[in-house]
Amino acid sequence: MSKKLTSRAEDYSKWYNELVVKADLAENSAVRGCMVIKPYGYAIWEKMQAELDKMFKETGHQNAYFPLFVPKSLFEAEEKNAEGFAKECAIVTHYRLQNDPDKPGKLRVDPEAKLEEELIVRPTSEAIIWNTYKGWIQSYRDLPILVNQWANVVRWEMRTRLFLRTAEFLWQEGHTAHETKKEALDEAALMNNVYAAFVEKFMAIPVIQGLKTESERFAGAEETYCIEALMQDGKALQAGTSHFLGQNFAKAFDVKFANKEGKQDYVWATSWGVSTRLMGALIMTHSDDKGLVLPPNLAPYQVIIVPIFRNDEQFEAISKVAEDVISDLKERGISVKFDKRDTLRPGAKFAQHELQGVPLRIAIGPKDLEDETVEVARRDTLTKQTVILDRITVVIENLLEEIQESLFKKALDFRDTHITEVDNFEDFKTILETKTGFISAHWDGTAETEDKIKELTKATIRCIPLDAKAEEGVCVYSGKPSNKRVLFAKAY
Amino acid sequence: MSKKLTSRAEDYSKWYNELVVKADLAENSAVRGCMVIKPYGYAIWEKMQAELDKMFKETGHQNAYFPLFVPKSLFEAEEKNAEGFAKECAIVTHYRLQNDPDKPGKLRVDPEAKLEEELIVRPTSEAIIWNTYKGWIQSYRDLPILVNQWANVVRWEMRTRLFLRTAEFLWQEGHTAHETKKEALDEAALMNNVYAAFVEKFMAIPVIQGLKTESERFAGAEETYCIEALMQDGKALQAGTSHFLGQNFAKAFDVKFANKEGKQDYVWATSWGVSTRLMGALIMTHSDDKGLVLPPNLAPYQVIIVPIFRNDEQFEAISKVAEDVISDLKERGISVKFDKRDTLRPGAKFAQHELQGVPLRIAIGPKDLEDETVEVARRDTLTKQTVILDRITVVIENLLEEIQESLFKKALDFRDTHITEVDNFEDFKTILETKTGFISAHWDGTAETEDKIKELTKATIRCIPLDAKAEEGVCVYSGKPSNKRVLFAKAY
Repeated sequence: MSKKLTSRAEDYSKWYNELVVKADLAENSAVRGCMVIKPYGYAIWEKMQAELDKMFKETGHQNAYFPLFVPKSLFEAEEKNAEGFAKECAIVTHYRLQNDPDKPGKLRVDPEAKLEEELIVRPTSEAIIWNTYKGWIQSYRDLPILVNQWANVVRWEMRTRLFLRTAEFLWQEGHTAHETKKEALDEAALMNNVYAAFVEKFMAIPVIQGLKTESERFAGAEETYCIEALMQDGKALQAGTSHFLGQNFAKAFDVKFANKEGKQDYVWATSWGVSTRLMGALIMTHSDDKGLVLPPNLAPYQVIIVPIFRNDEQFEAISKVAEDVISDLKERGISVKFDKRDTLRPGAKFAQHELQGVPLRIAIGPKDLEDETVEVARRDTLTKQTVILDRITVVIENLLEEIQESLFKKALDFRDTHITEVDNFEDFKTILETKTGFISAHWDGTAETEDKIKELTKATIRCIPLDAKAEEGVCVYSGKPSNKRVLFAKAY
Repeated sequence: MSKKLTSRAEDYSKWYNELVVKADLAENSAVRGCMVIKPYGYAIWEKMQAELDKMFKETGHQNAYFPLFVPKSLFEAEEKNAEGFAKECAIVTHYRLQNDPDKPGKLRVDPEAKLEEELIVRPTSEAIIWNTYKGWIQSYRDLPILVNQWANVVRWEMRTRLFLRTAEFLWQEGHTAHETKKEALDEAALMNNVYAAFVEKFMAIPVIQGLKTESERFAGAEETYCIEALMQDGKALQAGTSHFLGQNFAKAFDVKFANKEGKQDYVWATSWGVSTRLMGALIMTHSDDKGLVLPPNLAPYQVIIVPIFRNDEQFEAISKVAEDVISDLKERGISVKFDKRDTLRPGAKFAQHELQGVPLRIAIGPKDLEDETVEVARRDTLTKQTVILDRITVVIENLLEEIQESLFKKALDFRDTHITEVDNFEDFKTILETKTGFISAHWDGTAETEDKIKELTKATIRCIPLDAKAEEGVCVYSGKPSNKRVLFAKAY
C-alpha cells in the first residue's frame, strides 16, 4: 500500500493495474484469468446495478434466471446459425457424486464420472434462453417477452486484465422477443439509449452512440447498436452493446408464434448487455496519478470525515461535531463515513481516501473547533476550502452536484478535443501515433478496407455514429466514394 | 394452465411440482437438474434478496465477489481438513480458445484443449475465499472481515426438485474472519438470529433455532446453528445455517495474523447461507389447493385490480376509478397491477391471480360504479367484502398487514400442534407414520443412536433447540440418560 502509484505518463497500463489493486477494487485470484472483486470495488458495481436495474424496470423489463450451463448440442445449434459465436469457453466434462444420502449404501459411483453430454459454461445465454422461450411462446398474446438476467459468464480469454478482460465476469444480459421487426429494432435502439443515459448521467462518462460495422458485430446480430467511450490514453472502450438479432435465434431454436392473422411466424429478437468492464471505463475516464476519482453517484461513501487530534479530549470534542455533521448529511441522503481509526495518522488517511477516490473529505482539527469551521477538500480538483460549520450541509450538497457535472464536462472536453477529422491515410497514421483518440474519416463501406486499415494501424471502426451527417467524401484508404464519416480508434 | 391443480391430500409432492410450474415460478431446463427461475418467481426471490441484503449491511457486512471456479488443488486442501466436504460437483477439464484477435494468425490452438489443472465449479466458496483472505490478513488491524457474496453454486445432485434441490442454485454465503473464538461464535449466533428474524417476519414462516448434531453438521464446522421450519405435509425443512468454523479453514489455508500481543495466531471463521430453497419453504408453508398464497411482503404485486365490463364505455368508466385507486395505493407504497387484458374473462383472471397468490384482488363492475363501492377478495382466506370506494386505501393497507400476521399465526399454530413429545420408541414410530411433524424426544447424545433411528424411521435430528429446557429423561431409543429433548423429523 505504501509504495507510490506509477504515474499515467510513465506507464498508463501499469498505472491502471496498480490502481485497481491499491484502491482495493479487485485482484487476481488463484484461478487463471478470474478476478476477486473486493468489497470497495463491489460496492461501486452494486450502485451501477441498482441504477441500471431501476432503468430496466422503468422500461418494462423483468428479471429472471437461466442455467449456468449450456448443453453442447444447443450451443452447436446456435453456432450453425451464427458462425464464430463465442468461441472461447470452459467445458464441463465430469462430475463427482456423493452416495445418495437417503439410500445409504445403495448408490455408489466412481469418484469422477464422465457426463453423457458435455456442458459449456455460458459465455452468453442466447442458446439456453431461446431454447426456453420456445416453451413460453405460442401466440402473439405471449409477446413481447422483456427479460433481463444478472449473471456471471465465462470466456476463456488468453490474455486477461482486471475488469477489462477476465475469464469470468459479471454482467446483465437482456433477451427480448417480439411480434414484429420494427418492435425489435425499436427495443434495441431504446436499450442503447438507456445505456447512454446511464453511462453519461450516472457514471459521468460521455459516449458516442452508433452502429457497429458488419465485421465488428456480435455473431448472430443483424444490427448492433453500441456506446463508445474514450479513455485518457486515447484508446476507445466499447461500454455497452444492444443487438437486433432478427429472426436468427428464433430460426435456430424453432420459436414460432401464431400472429394476429392466425399465421405462424418466427419471433423477432434482441439482446443487450453491459458488464463489470464498465469499472475499467470508470477508472480510465476520471482517475489521476493520486488514484481513483469517483463521481459522487458511484462512490461507496461520498464524504469522509477525518479528525485531527493530539489527545482524547480533542478527539471527543471533534467526534461530537462530526456526529452532528454526519446526521445532517445522512438526512439529505448523502453517504458519509467517520474515519476514527487510531492506527493511522491524518496524512496517511488523506492519502488512502485520495487513492480510493472519495469525492469529498472533511477535516476537523482543534483550530476548527475554536473557529466553528471545517476544512473541505475536493478529490477531483484537489482544492481545499474552509467552510463555516453552520453551512456545511448545503455546501457539501452543492459540491457533490458540482463534482458530478464537472467530471462529465471535463471528460467531454477531453473526448471532443480528441476527435480528429482526417482526410488522407498519412494523417490517419500520424494522428494514431501522436494525438490518438477517435479519428473521424470517410470509409468505403467494405470489410476489405476495414481489415486492411486494422492490419496496418491496429485501428478499428468503433462505430458509425447515429448522428453522422450526410457528407460526400472519399474513403481515407481506398479513395472510393463515401457519404458519411465513421469513427476509427485503437480500442480496449 | 387450464388443467386443475392436483390437491394436496391427493399427492402433496405432485401438488408442489405442479404449483411451481403453473404459478410461473420456475421450470426445468434443458440442463439436467438445473432450473429456469421465471420472472414471477424471480421477483419473489429479489424481494428476499433485498431484505436480507439490508439486514446484512445493518449488521456491518459488505458484499464482494469471488471466482466461480476452484482449482482442484485448493479443493483438496480443504477436503483434507474437512472430510466429506461438498462431494457432489461439476468439473471443468477443457477449454476452447479463439485465435488471439490482436495477433491474427499467430496463435492457433486446438478447438478443445485440456486444462493444466482441473477446475471445480464452486459448490460453496470456503476454499477460494480463504485462499484469498490469506493475502488480506496480516494483523489484528485487518480483522474482522465481514463479507457476503450473492452467487450461483453447483452441486451435482442425483435427484433434483425445483427450488428444493437443484444442481445449480442461487444463494448468499457469508464468510467472516475474526480475532477471537468468542467473536466468531457470536457472529455465527447473530447471523442465525438474522435468518430467524427474516424468515419469521418477512416470509411469515415460524422457525425453531437450534444447533445441529455432529453428524448433521457441515463438514469443517465445529458448531452449526440452524433454523428449522415445518412444512404442511409434516416434513421439516432446514431454512438456513450459520457455521462456527473454528480455526479449521485458517489452518487448511495457513491464514495467520499478528494479534495485539504481537504473536502469530490462526484466524477464527464463520460461514452462513440461505438459498433459493427458501422459495420451496415459502410455497409449502402457505399455499393451498387453489395455488400459491404469498405473504404481502413477498408478493411481486400485492393488489390486482380486475375490471368487469361488457362494453368500452363501462371499461373506460371503471379504468378511471381504477387509476385513482392505483395512484392512492402507490402513494402508500403498495404495489398494484391493473389487469386490463381483453383476451381473458374475469373468471379466468380470478383463477390465475389465485394460482399466483396475489394477496388482494379488487373487482370493479358497473354495479360498483353506481354504488361507489368495490369488491375486495382475500387470497389467504378466500373471503370477499364490499368496500366503500372512499375507504379503499386504508382498508387495503390494514388488510395487507392483517394477512401478513395471519399467515404467520396460522403457520405457527400448525407447527405448534405438530410438535409431539414422545417418550418411547413405539410412540415415536407411530407418530411418524400418522401425525408426522416434529417429535420432541430424549436422545443419548451418540451418533450410533442417531444413525440407528435414521435407519429405522428415516427421521433425523433436525436440531437441539437453543431454548431446550434442562430435563432429566432417558433416550427414546437406547434408554440411556439424557438431560434435554431434541427435535426429530423426516426432512426435505
